[in-house]
Amino acid sequence: MDAITRIERALAGSLALTERPGAPPRLGEAMRYAVFPRGARVRPRLCLAVASACGDDLPELSDAAAAAIELLHCASLVHDDLPCFDDAALRRGKPALHRAFGEPLAVLAGDALIVLAFQTVARAAPLSPARAAAILVALGDGVGVPFGIVAGQAWECEAEVDLAAYQRQKTGALFAAAAMAGALAAGAPADPWRLFGERLGEAYQVADDLADAVCEERESGKTCGQDVAHDRPSAVRSLGLAGAVRRLEALTEEAVAAVPACDGAAQLKALIRSEARRLLPEKLALTTA
Amino acid sequence: MDAITRIERALAGSLALTERPGAPPRLGEAMRYAVFPRGARVRPRLCLAVASACGDDLPELSDAAAAAIELLHCASLVHDDLPCFDDAALRRGKPALHRAFGEPLAVLAGDALIVLAFQTVARAAPLSPARAAAILVALGDGVGVPFGIVAGQAWECEAEVDLAAYQRQKTGALFAAAAMAGALAAGAPADPWRLFGERLGEAYQVADDLADAVCEERESGKTCGQDVAHDRPSAVRSLGLAGAVRRLEALTEEAVAAVPACDGAAQLKALIRSEARRLLPEKLALTTA
Repeated sequence: MDAITRIERALAGSLALTERPGAPPRLGEAMRYAVFPRGARVRPRLCLAVASACGDDLPELSDAAAAAIELLHCASLVHDDLPCFDDAALRRGKPALHRAFGEPLAVLAGDALIVLAFQTVARAAPLSPARAAAILVALGDGVGVPFGIVAGQAWECEAEVDLAAYQRQKTGALFAAAAMAGALAAGAPADPWRLFGERLGEAYQVADDLADAVCEERESGKTCGQDVAHDRPSAVRSLGLAGAVRRLEALTEEAVAAVPACDGAAQLKALIRSEARRLLPEKLALTTA
Repeated sequence: MDAITRIERALAGSLALTERPGAPPRLGEAMRYAVFPRGARVRPRLCLAVASACGDDLPELSDAAAAAIELLHCASLVHDDLPCFDDAALRRGKPALHRAFGEPLAVLAGDALIVLAFQTVARAAPLSPARAAAILVALGDGVGVPFGIVAGQAWECEAEVDLAAYQRQKTGALFAAAAMAGALAAGAPADPWRLFGERLGEAYQVADDLADAVCEERESGKTCGQDVAHDRPSAVRSLGLAGAVRRLEALTEEAVAAVPACDGAAQLKALIRSEARRLLPEKLALTTA
């Protein structure tokens, strides 16, 4: 079964919990609206790619970890889009959740998606309680305090911003968690995968800054020009377009170099390079080819 | 060590994560503001009381479970107080978190507290991965979909409200999770404790409705008269003051009758009855004595 099929099936399985008789129906609708139809599923595919590279001997546990990573990502998008942050109009090519369901359900759907991520892995724990517990720690560190994506977002509320911490936490942390959770699901140690995940996260952030700057709204499915509008740090603003493209390429090679020794290392490195080419906005791929 | 000392120490230990160099300082301040100074700590005390009744052979795991329950409760208060819900001015006798730190940090502090609850138990998992995983499932069910407190809150966004589900989920679910997590931390099965926790939760909700109706602002430390102001269901509105007091007494006895057989059953029953007397607002204790 290919990675996307596994991920979509695992997400559908998790979200089926919302459909039990006696549950509030619109909350479940809002949660499914946040998760489907799918975006690129970059983070859960990373999780499964690392699990495969490490042997993937408990694929149901890997699927649970991958679904959890994506649920946390979707939750962060829902809350980041709220009026008190970006007040984004569009997300994945349709109205942002709070525009479609109202602000109360956007807060609650985000909360419930965070919880569902942990429920998903905890419910898979009978496969291996020790591995599941380690995955849950990695998930918590990727999203919570002190250095997860919520902490990254919170830097926007500080008077003085630690830029390196902001960028590493806001994007890198969940990529690191995705890679580490994939390794843990396959019984491999997590720490050797942290740097690899962080570099990929930085590369992805640069690609996102590039897409925002050249306004590829059709592709990213969200409102563009947000970095300038919200005066946010961006690789394009600090390095220029060509500089940001070079930075994306350098980070990709650093990620490739950071792949720990494992049976599937060569295949994983090839996958990373091909993904990085796909991430470069089309307009720029033409001008820098 | 008494229960409150254990709980405060466990919460302080969890929140110490926010103080690592490189973490955004105001997020940590906001999270501590949400958790300290303490409220009644009713749910974590329930968790520890059940753990004690079941032998409490891994007290550090019980402490982690109790802290997690309280962190989830504090998170729900922060998000329920947001402008898109109650827009409450006061909580525990001081400005609600979004009034003190702004709405963005209120959203993020709530998110981070939810995550911290799961981190706290996952980090204690080496004590017993299987018990920790079961506790994490109970926590997730208590707070998330389909029937946790987030689902309960989401009933306020439905056109047609299932009143019984609303009340059971909004308060009962986390009480049930507290009791079940306490049993699981001590290696006992969780299911026999669900009904006990749910009845206590209902009793507590009735006590809360009574406090809101007689406006004991000094004691509850939050804005009173909210049920009428927001047209919310309330035991006082449906049963009257005296009827609600009788309901509180009946639910307390149902909870006592639901205590499963265990070594500490008699002590636990005595504790429940004494707590229920404390919960009755002073004004009513005088008039109904």
